[in-house]
Amino acid sequence: MNRAINFSAGPAALPTEVLEQAQAEMLDYAGTGMSVMEMSHRSAEFIDIAERAERDLRELLQIPDDYHVLFLQGGATLQFAMVPLNLLGDRGTADYVNTGSWSTKAIKEAARFCSVNVAASAEEHGFDRIPDPETWACSPDAAYLHICSNETIGGVQFHSFPDREAGRDVGPPLVADMSSDILSRPIDVSRFGLIYAGAQKNVGPAGLTIVIVRKDLVGAARPGTPSMLDYAVHAEAGSMSNTPPTYAWYLAGLVFAWVRSLGGVAAVEERNRRKAAKLYEAIDGSNLFRSPVVEEARSTMNVPFTLPAGELDAAFLAGATERGLLNLKGHRSVGGMRASLYNAVPESAVDALIAYMREFETDHLR
Amino acid sequence: MNRAINFSAGPAALPTEVLEQAQAEMLDYAGTGMSVMEMSHRSAEFIDIAERAERDLRELLQIPDDYHVLFLQGGATLQFAMVPLNLLGDRGTADYVNTGSWSTKAIKEAARFCSVNVAASAEEHGFDRIPDPETWACSPDAAYLHICSNETIGGVQFHSFPDREAGRDVGPPLVADMSSDILSRPIDVSRFGLIYAGAQKNVGPAGLTIVIVRKDLVGAARPGTPSMLDYAVHAEAGSMSNTPPTYAWYLAGLVFAWVRSLGGVAAVEERNRRKAAKLYEAIDGSNLFRSPVVEEARSTMNVPFTLPAGELDAAFLAGATERGLLNLKGHRSVGGMRASLYNAVPESAVDALIAYMREFETDHLR
Repeated sequence: MNRAINFSAGPAALPTEVLEQAQAEMLDYAGTGMSVMEMSHRSAEFIDIAERAERDLRELLQIPDDYHVLFLQGGATLQFAMVPLNLLGDRGTADYVNTGSWSTKAIKEAARFCSVNVAASAEEHGFDRIPDPETWACSPDAAYLHICSNETIGGVQFHSFPDREAGRDVGPPLVADMSSDILSRPIDVSRFGLIYAGAQKNVGPAGLTIVIVRKDLVGAARPGTPSMLDYAVHAEAGSMSNTPPTYAWYLAGLVFAWVRSLGGVAAVEERNRRKAAKLYEAIDGSNLFRSPVVEEARSTMNVPFTLPAGELDAAFLAGATERGLLNLKGHRSVGGMRASLYNAVPESAVDALIAYMREFETDHLR
Repeated sequence: MNRAINFSAGPAALPTEVLEQAQAEMLDYAGTGMSVMEMSHRSAEFIDIAERAERDLRELLQIPDDYHVLFLQGGATLQFAMVPLNLLGDRGTADYVNTGSWSTKAIKEAARFCSVNVAASAEEHGFDRIPDPETWACSPDAAYLHICSNETIGGVQFHSFPDREAGRDVGPPLVADMSSDILSRPIDVSRFGLIYAGAQKNVGPAGLTIVIVRKDLVGAARPGTPSMLDYAVHAEAGSMSNTPPTYAWYLAGLVFAWVRSLGGVAAVEERNRRKAAKLYEAIDGSNLFRSPVVEEARSTMNVPFTLPAGELDAAFLAGATERGLLNLKGHRSVGGMRASLYNAVPESAVDALIAYMREFETDHLR
């Protein structure tokens, strides 16, 4: 079987073992004679799949009991609206930290529903860093403070989170878009009021959104919020108020089991750090490639790099494709290259990329 | 391979051929070395999959060029909110016809956004019929008229649609929830302003929603509508404003190709009519089973039937399960039995069910 080396930013590589299991079970799940796709979401078999997935995710991220775990639709982009609609309460302001493209989108959507206070922004630095939390100008009456833990496009990541004393008593709840780094490392969930993530990077296929939300924050959606955008409706129904994306939920469960089989998120983090460190070392040690991100904010998940003045981009990409190193083109909004190193990207893929980069440099730098 | 005979109301049986193709392509789609799940939605391969699916659906339903076809998330239940948010414009009223559980839910959600005029209701008849269109008390200033073309739970179906002169000049646009009968028969799309359908009956896996909407009805969402709930945002971006549910979209495309291979929706309708006619004939010819629906409104997709006083339900279901006839239990809200006969349920499944019903009747009626 010919499996590509896939550096896609998302939808992204999934573990081969997971796809093999899904393949084996495609027409007959556990002797039921049905695909998981063909099962009622209210069937005993699917309820078991759904509950196991939630249990595994709770264990992997050590999610406290006073948090709901929701399996929703609509992507992180729908969360850009659901967060303010559900968390604003009677407040008219929310704090946002702008660290790149996804933060900017979240801010733009939130501004439809409230006054957004941009507490800090790295825009003047071309989004190459995380603004120092000491400098954040938070609003005294913000309903919540929103960050994007990893900017998929810019390759900028929070490596520590603002101290919120377990998120509860000091300042407003911390809300994080973790779409592109959830499950890549251990996190202290209790420091967050709400975490959301589109599935299509480290969790499963597109079309599933994970929301982890502290129970006391649920139940105060603003009047006129569509039912499907009210966390309380989903929480009360165990994410089955209407038909959930059952197959995506099942695949997420297979991914959670796979992460457990690797030793959990701490083991995965170690591997991710090793993968990223190697690649950044290769970039920094090169006279051709450059990282546009300051060292302390570099993402372990998305590694952008540039070639001089861009004139070699096409040649680099063509050679990469020849070698089966796919989807290395940077996002159209920033250009250059980007290697996404999600959990399912093996260390050997990074080694192959580095070997090619060295070869390319030798050929093009004399 | 042991494939069940699956009468589930949804998520429901999918064509074995479709699942086999998905299985074969699970780890390597068309020599790409990737699963469709692992591809960027912006990749040439996925764009091709997406466009082919839309093209096939347009051809199958003869969708005119002045309609958008959108591939969305959130299920029909999210459409219950999106329809009023997008179509009310400056009007405060919409007409709804209440033919059962799903109409009732649509009405309840719409009432969050406007004054709902229930133009007709079959509630006093226990939702056993479609109210005669001649008796509908439509509002003179309604923004649209909403129907549910097939009630999945009650088994009541529109076999003709109110005459709207191509939906355009007489009365407000006709909006139809076709979740459980889309693709089961030819329809004249031009008579509708908007058609929506959750995928998990005749189209594909749960987590995908098809919206077919006349272009002039798009672009007037009410202020404060979340971007992801604005048809215009999706229409402008070819349903790729954010990451769509790519794998579900791909599977829908496989189902569309399968329907084409059967000869299109006219051929499928003939088969569906034959399947349903057989089963209703067996029910009507029986002294044990009863259909709760008046003859002219009986659904070809969902066939509810009851046993006397319900005391034989458990025995009937146990015997069915023994014979591999699965998911025949009626919805918890109405009880009794229900056989869902979507496109992917083969005629042989209906034959097996009828044979079992005759056997059961002989054993239990003396």
